[in-house]
Amino acid sequence: MSRKCIGIDIGGTTVKLGMFEQDGTLLEKWEIPTRKENGGAHILEDIAAAIKKKAAERGLSTADFEGAGMGLPGPVLEDGHVEFCVNLGWKAMNPQEILSGLLDGMPVKSANDANVAALGELWQGGGRGYKNMVMITLGTGVGGGIILNEKIWSGMQGVGGEIGHIHVIEGETEQCNCGGYGCLEQAASATGIARLARKLLEADPARPSSLREVKNLSAKSVLDAARAGDPLALESVETSCRYLGWAMAGITMVVDPEAYLIGGGVSRAGTFLTEKIQRYHDQLSPMATKKAKVLLATLGNDAGIYGAAKLVLG
Amino acid sequence: MSRKCIGIDIGGTTVKLGMFEQDGTLLEKWEIPTRKENGGAHILEDIAAAIKKKAAERGLSTADFEGAGMGLPGPVLEDGHVEFCVNLGWKAMNPQEILSGLLDGMPVKSANDANVAALGELWQGGGRGYKNMVMITLGTGVGGGIILNEKIWSGMQGVGGEIGHIHVIEGETEQCNCGGYGCLEQAASATGIARLARKLLEADPARPSSLREVKNLSAKSVLDAARAGDPLALESVETSCRYLGWAMAGITMVVDPEAYLIGGGVSRAGTFLTEKIQRYHDQLSPMATKKAKVLLATLGNDAGIYGAAKLVLG
Repeated sequence: MSRKCIGIDIGGTTVKLGMFEQDGTLLEKWEIPTRKENGGAHILEDIAAAIKKKAAERGLSTADFEGAGMGLPGPVLEDGHVEFCVNLGWKAMNPQEILSGLLDGMPVKSANDANVAALGELWQGGGRGYKNMVMITLGTGVGGGIILNEKIWSGMQGVGGEIGHIHVIEGETEQCNCGGYGCLEQAASATGIARLARKLLEADPARPSSLREVKNLSAKSVLDAARAGDPLALESVETSCRYLGWAMAGITMVVDPEAYLIGGGVSRAGTFLTEKIQRYHDQLSPMATKKAKVLLATLGNDAGIYGAAKLVLG
Repeated sequence: MSRKCIGIDIGGTTVKLGMFEQDGTLLEKWEIPTRKENGGAHILEDIAAAIKKKAAERGLSTADFEGAGMGLPGPVLEDGHVEFCVNLGWKAMNPQEILSGLLDGMPVKSANDANVAALGELWQGGGRGYKNMVMITLGTGVGGGIILNEKIWSGMQGVGGEIGHIHVIEGETEQCNCGGYGCLEQAASATGIARLARKLLEADPARPSSLREVKNLSAKSVLDAARAGDPLALESVETSCRYLGWAMAGITMVVDPEAYLIGGGVSRAGTFLTEKIQRYHDQLSPMATKKAKVLLATLGNDAGIYGAAKLVLG
């Protein structure tokens, strides 16, 4: 019997776990709550107990596993050191060493969750068959993961892949969470898409738009209205897609990937969105004669557990 | 006696050659003309003859060399294939295989010259001691070379590192050589620096500037006037540096290097230039708490032969 492996995706509310065969077959997935009390002191104990329990149900011991991988919501150094992980309450610790200790020395590896999701999509999702790929997650923020030669590239301080904070909007006066002004995230995240539409509505109160009747304008309402043909909504979506395509064209001039994978809640808009992004990317990267393909991510919320498992398989 | 190696930098006018010890000591450098007749058919023969002659002078044979590396003025595929090399007249050939044959099977490797120069600076120049570095050459154009884990990264089609063609100037109406509009090269190359100053002079004919007396405005005249305190020239240089710092801040969000190395003719302006670039890079990459250092390249025109030699040493 070949050894299994475990993928762990730690979020602020729940921890997602998956048990995999080494060929990527998902045997079982489950969740446990993230206990954040006492500076998150119980999170790793809970994970270790959950893995041991699930293994026992299958008559397996920790020795039957190749290892476990973890995606963490924050920057992770090469050796697994985490300086801080705000959402979990962790400070200056090495979670992979601790978890390995709790799992009788099972090999444990860890990396940032956005990067791990990118690796998951490359292994078993929309990025299958590629070696060099950039994943862009359009959710509340804009996350990114860079995969070069089938490995996560996160740079000297883990900032590699933070493409939500590429500057694109000149003259922006609202501040981004990162402290900057005019980041991609302010234009192309779910929040950013709604924000640009709101600005367009305010810019000319006389301009008609079906969005004027929408309470609590969301990215979904803007995208739905654009798809239904509302000119203002469409203009707003085109602007968001242009900023994203522009940032991606820049990424092409730096790492020249084979493909971009668009994931996150906003990506539910599907090819309506990716076709626009592809068009702006291509326009703004004339040097690249082979155009990187803009594709949709396919693993959804499971990308993290897949990528985490792949992390430890190497 | 340890085996030597050869670095070759092929330009449109001359071929630069260097003989090195494996520790990077340059034993001798020399040049031969680039014979471009018959579609550049004699270039590699001339190089092979020059190497054999120089080796013979030292009582060495091809077997006394670890290998030879070549920097070529165009895109080079992983296996050494060159689809076209406009400046040399080459089409669809594998120069490294041909040269290896002419040198009795000596190992030969090749890569794009801008990338090779970056590798040279990392090995023996301003980038010594770093593993991850981006070199930016400010000359007639803006060239770039990306080094990750001490190796050249040139991406799927060799466009990786073409940072002169990152889009930064919105609304630009003049076309860049690449076919795009608003590339970094149009703002921060020698040509671009002079161009921005000229635009500023034209924008307000009443605004006084010492540059109005300069015939054939060059980047050097703009930089000299800025250093001497001419407000218009200074504003123009600040604009060029901001565009460059902006593009670099984006690169930081993608590959997060330890350092940037500024080379090329424009870099003779020294720290007057790099301090400004550093300031804009830092401002536009607030996420990066450890700031990549903006340094000056030190090998000048020899970077290519150093990098080429390092290429074959691996």
